[in-house]
Amino acid sequence: MNSNIVPSISRRHFFSKGSKVAVGSLFLGGLFNSLQAKGEGLEVPEWSRSLGAMPNIHPYGLPSPFENHVIKDILMPSAPEGYVSSSIALTSAVSPLSQIYGNITPNGLFFERHHSGVPQIDPKEHRLLIHGLVENDIVFTVDALKRLPSIQKTYFVECSGNTGISKNSSPDQKLDDRFGLMSCAQWTGVKLSLLLEEAGIDLKKAKYIIAEGADGATMARSVPISRAMDDAMVAFAQNGEAIRPEQGYPLKLLIPGCEGNINIKWLRRLEVTDTPLFARDEVSKYSDLLANHKARQATLVMDVKSVITYPTTGFNLKEKGFYEIRGIAWSGRGKISRVDVSLDGGKNWQEATLSSQPLAKAFVAFTYIWKFEEKPATLMSRTRDEEGYIQPYFKQITDARGFNSESHNNAIQAWHVDSKGEVSNVRI
Amino acid sequence: MNSNIVPSISRRHFFSKGSKVAVGSLFLGGLFNSLQAKGEGLEVPEWSRSLGAMPNIHPYGLPSPFENHVIKDILMPSAPEGYVSSSIALTSAVSPLSQIYGNITPNGLFFERHHSGVPQIDPKEHRLLIHGLVENDIVFTVDALKRLPSIQKTYFVECSGNTGISKNSSPDQKLDDRFGLMSCAQWTGVKLSLLLEEAGIDLKKAKYIIAEGADGATMARSVPISRAMDDAMVAFAQNGEAIRPEQGYPLKLLIPGCEGNINIKWLRRLEVTDTPLFARDEVSKYSDLLANHKARQATLVMDVKSVITYPTTGFNLKEKGFYEIRGIAWSGRGKISRVDVSLDGGKNWQEATLSSQPLAKAFVAFTYIWKFEEKPATLMSRTRDEEGYIQPYFKQITDARGFNSESHNNAIQAWHVDSKGEVSNVRI
Repeated sequence: MNSNIVPSISRRHFFSKGSKVAVGSLFLGGLFNSLQAKGEGLEVPEWSRSLGAMPNIHPYGLPSPFENHVIKDILMPSAPEGYVSSSIALTSAVSPLSQIYGNITPNGLFFERHHSGVPQIDPKEHRLLIHGLVENDIVFTVDALKRLPSIQKTYFVECSGNTGISKNSSPDQKLDDRFGLMSCAQWTGVKLSLLLEEAGIDLKKAKYIIAEGADGATMARSVPISRAMDDAMVAFAQNGEAIRPEQGYPLKLLIPGCEGNINIKWLRRLEVTDTPLFARDEVSKYSDLLANHKARQATLVMDVKSVITYPTTGFNLKEKGFYEIRGIAWSGRGKISRVDVSLDGGKNWQEATLSSQPLAKAFVAFTYIWKFEEKPATLMSRTRDEEGYIQPYFKQITDARGFNSESHNNAIQAWHVDSKGEVSNVRI
Repeated sequence: MNSNIVPSISRRHFFSKGSKVAVGSLFLGGLFNSLQAKGEGLEVPEWSRSLGAMPNIHPYGLPSPFENHVIKDILMPSAPEGYVSSSIALTSAVSPLSQIYGNITPNGLFFERHHSGVPQIDPKEHRLLIHGLVENDIVFTVDALKRLPSIQKTYFVECSGNTGISKNSSPDQKLDDRFGLMSCAQWTGVKLSLLLEEAGIDLKKAKYIIAEGADGATMARSVPISRAMDDAMVAFAQNGEAIRPEQGYPLKLLIPGCEGNINIKWLRRLEVTDTPLFARDEVSKYSDLLANHKARQATLVMDVKSVITYPTTGFNLKEKGFYEIRGIAWSGRGKISRVDVSLDGGKNWQEATLSSQPLAKAFVAFTYIWKFEEKPATLMSRTRDEEGYIQPYFKQITDARGFNSESHNNAIQAWHVDSKGEVSNVRI
């Protein structure tokens, strides 16, 4: 679909030509003014003249200390009205999207959202029960589950409240705060349909699977049987290693493309039923209240969406010249088919380059080469999925739904770059 | 190519049928004999009755404490003859392949091999020089490199000494010790050909690129110009975040499909030349000494190879029944086209299922469902790449090369399972 890396500009465009010795001013419109080429060599730094450190004090490796700003931002809610103090139960942590490359979120930077903190579960003690409208109840240990045929799939998980409609959208709002309640990983686990079929699910009566977690909140959600028998999976590994405690260790339900909350963490129970549960977190929460004060029931799918991740608020383009605009696109309905970028607030659009083959219900990274001329620009991305759904403007969403609901906002995001290269959040 | 998850057995095969209440003995040939189904429910564990922990004390997340056995094994070499003590310079650390799922190695578990320890490089101070047979020398800062058009690719890196020919292959040798000097990641960086073209490389004279690292060993290697202008890249990110210090932070050269040592870490200099460097690590090391005492020069490519990662030495199949055999396959020449598994030491072979679409010069995971009948079995995998190269037996390699060389052994690996389910390493 998109095989060119630099689609629309000549390669020789990047560097202008000049004499052999003076390197500084020739490159990227003056990027290296402050650098001198010292003959053909470089000064030999201290680390090239000495023995390095022991390879790893900790045999589970960590990033460079020079990257210690690339972390999750843990958000503690303020105390609700009428309560004395905030609770550690309802925490969340946003992923530093502005510092992540490609379509896979490193496990250490995966977003978090909890309703009763993070249980520390001993996998030897953990069990998964399948019961209800089945021929045979089954109780699984984690080890037993790992003996079954496994699949390996890349899926995003996005909190339905990500990019909340009424959330602060001031010029200084940063990408991570606005979009950071989402991540994407490669999951390994067992197809849910295999487990249900082998338990002898009664497909004539079964309409829902009630999935329940082992956390103190007993988080539970109703999964339509059509999704349970499609691409749903019970995952035990995330990006090659055991699922992290914050993501549901040792077992997590994945309902690909659906809002984060239904991907039940610390999964302990799957009950096949003929009615939904009407659980707290699918009735009082995670439902969309419309302008006419009626609420949508179970808006599960996360619609097509994209966002530019560089440059965004907080970055400053210090010099004119070429910059790579980078971003991600995703859809809960299938594969991304195209991403376009606008540099002028939506008047003109050009096709971006996809960095890898798009996978269904997964992030795909995109890039677009842009020359900053020290003139104001408004950068936007707009994507389309294989079902033909095109990412809408914010006004299209609020015209249809009003402002009562926080959730399921997939509007186009704009970032304004002023003539000095300062970037700010702007609502178009 | 391989879209079925369970190719050759009926799904209903996994579970036999029985009454509703007694779950234990019905499943997987008795796997759950020790479990009781208590009505339709489970005991409510302590972690379901209490508030969980704070989501993350450290905002860069870590695995569950119950996974603290899943770590790298750091190998300190013993003192060479005539030396007083061993050096921390020549260390390596093997990746715990037996505990990794899928084709991507988590960054915390990526293998390590150092020749002068791990330099702790400040990316603001680091520079990359391109010089030699070019029109213009160029000096890059790391930030400047990140402004250029980037690519995102999944490639394996394997030490040429991995699975060394003369290394101990006793029955108790474990997978990680024998195969752990390799890993696979998704890399983000800039195509080397873009950098060389923009510097004005003289393609009439240029035959090699001398790549040099910033470590105390000044590790340097000669890259043939054909590879430099093909799929080589200068990477700054690994699985979505900055390259780890042990893998070359802030910049690593990737020559996809070639032996680990040529993928220069802490990359600081690229010199375009008309002759190879004949560096220590491409003459006295990393060259194959043949039976006739002549040495092969520059065996760069890592040929097609595969290995079963579960079950392997150290695992015990405690009960008869179904088990998923898991493994990985890769080739330095391109994509894997097929993997076969034998249960009887190579007499019969059946096609395994590939867990994802194979990518060129990357790991692909494979699976095969097997019923352990408490009878001895010898498990092997054999793979073939898109060039038609088929993984050889050990004897085919030593017949051609003898036993003088440690490196570039891509032989078929066998694991013996005895009637009690004990697994051991065996040379076929």
